[in-house]
Amino acid sequence: MAVYTEVTDEALAAFLASYDIGAMVAFRGIAEGVENSNYALKTTQGDFILTLYEKRVDPADLPWFLGLMEHLAAQGLPCPLPVRAKDGQNLNPLAGRIAAITTFLPGVWPRRVAIEHCEPLGAALARLHLAGSGFPPTRKNALGPDSWHNLLQKSLNDASSVQPGLGPELAAMLNGITNAWPQGLPTGHIHADLFQDNVFFLNGEISGVIDFYFACTDIYAYDIAICLNAWCFERDFSFNITKSRALLRGYTAHRPLSDAEAAALPVLCQGAAMRFLLTRLYDWLNTPPGALVTRKDPLDYYRRLRFHNTAMDASAYGL
Amino acid sequence: MAVYTEVTDEALAAFLASYDIGAMVAFRGIAEGVENSNYALKTTQGDFILTLYEKRVDPADLPWFLGLMEHLAAQGLPCPLPVRAKDGQNLNPLAGRIAAITTFLPGVWPRRVAIEHCEPLGAALARLHLAGSGFPPTRKNALGPDSWHNLLQKSLNDASSVQPGLGPELAAMLNGITNAWPQGLPTGHIHADLFQDNVFFLNGEISGVIDFYFACTDIYAYDIAICLNAWCFERDFSFNITKSRALLRGYTAHRPLSDAEAAALPVLCQGAAMRFLLTRLYDWLNTPPGALVTRKDPLDYYRRLRFHNTAMDASAYGL
Repeated sequence: MAVYTEVTDEALAAFLASYDIGAMVAFRGIAEGVENSNYALKTTQGDFILTLYEKRVDPADLPWFLGLMEHLAAQGLPCPLPVRAKDGQNLNPLAGRIAAITTFLPGVWPRRVAIEHCEPLGAALARLHLAGSGFPPTRKNALGPDSWHNLLQKSLNDASSVQPGLGPELAAMLNGITNAWPQGLPTGHIHADLFQDNVFFLNGEISGVIDFYFACTDIYAYDIAICLNAWCFERDFSFNITKSRALLRGYTAHRPLSDAEAAALPVLCQGAAMRFLLTRLYDWLNTPPGALVTRKDPLDYYRRLRFHNTAMDASAYGL
Repeated sequence: MAVYTEVTDEALAAFLASYDIGAMVAFRGIAEGVENSNYALKTTQGDFILTLYEKRVDPADLPWFLGLMEHLAAQGLPCPLPVRAKDGQNLNPLAGRIAAITTFLPGVWPRRVAIEHCEPLGAALARLHLAGSGFPPTRKNALGPDSWHNLLQKSLNDASSVQPGLGPELAAMLNGITNAWPQGLPTGHIHADLFQDNVFFLNGEISGVIDFYFACTDIYAYDIAICLNAWCFERDFSFNITKSRALLRGYTAHRPLSDAEAAALPVLCQGAAMRFLLTRLYDWLNTPPGALVTRKDPLDYYRRLRFHNTAMDASAYGL
């Protein structure tokens, strides 16, 4: 669920008074989202989303995230547009947190990925990459390859409780990935977390791309690799090359891949699987019983990783 | 949180096709609510709430709940109006559950109860009682005094893990309550769960009364006792007689209490505290670690119960 911070009506009223978006009509916590508290806010002027940033988000990063969203929305990408208060600020204190109001986006995220979702997804990702290129500030990927050895170290002792021998096996795989990590590929701003629940569809088209709080400046093709992991595996963890082909077709129609980017897809996919495996493993081992967050099985990504280990080149992904 | 059942877009589209409420625009899980899965549904015709009934609700009770809501809404009470499908049904299958669409109510539930909330609350409760009197079908209170001994039995062995000696102490208190339980008081349909998060306020007035899934036919004044427990204690569990007086003033302005009802308030309040104590105790002892539901401390109601044990008559509640 995604309401960690409760907002009193008095605090909300005072907060809204600093914006020019009308009077409060309704205010309901949203179940989706994991990192922050999200509320659906209806005012006399329409629908908005109110987000309170929780402790996992570094406040110093917030102006970059909101700046990127503002830039992408101005470029026509259907992403939430941060609403500025009367004084021009788009980040303001509320209930002991920093909060932002963004525009409401229509649509629904696909609970089951169909092949039909994948081409529009790839196209939206390419458009996001292209549109982001005009936004000069950068943000280092805090969960990039540099961080993975450290992340694994924190879970190494307890990893065997998840699967016998998992720690040493991941350490060996991780060495292989970081040694083969590509250098010199095109970089720019990437979403870095474009999972199903961050993409809304309406009438077969993408109506919203949300949750930019892992966005950073990194290899474009790594963002594709994250999407291949998130969108192209079936429930039994078999890889669906038809979905992958559609995703890549959608992407390359807007931003063709260089030979070097295509050749790097297998290791980028391994890295993307490793990244989610490691954060899930850490959360799995460190989420207290009774916590509000559903723990996600890290082995889901172990299974994906094993597929990527068998990929010899980009043809494994239908390219 | 309150999304236990995920609905695919295909299933949602098929479901909506059987209603005459326009095309889907957005669909978001709502964080509030404990028993059922709730979604905010926006269509081209407006805002609605979609509820999927989860396993704690007996499907046989649903027509009564929805019938009561329809009746109360027709009487002008601001409660959700069940929307009927084209075939006239207001309960329809969706994603392996029974589901209903109801109208969206504006407002926000008060995170912190102020004295100003209590008089309108009392008035709304009385209006609910009066409006319900024209709805002939009845529903037994499945969590009424008859059920309490049984509920306590299920927790008796483990209750001492919550507080030493709790089991025997509750057993003694419960005997006292059920022996003194009043007979012959006016009965009718009661909400039976009118906690803060089930009451929306907008501009100082009540704009919504929701969640009728504990509603039943029982002593009217017992519903008042539930509200006194839910709305009139401070965070330190001290009783706020000013709030209580306001609540009772709001209620009696619409439905005066008989002498017998007033005299029964202390034992009814003890019973109401016992009812929530017992269900919370059971949930506390039986909620698996990692469950999505936040366990609520049963001792919150033990502390309330101890206050009610000191109440000699209705004057303790400001009457």
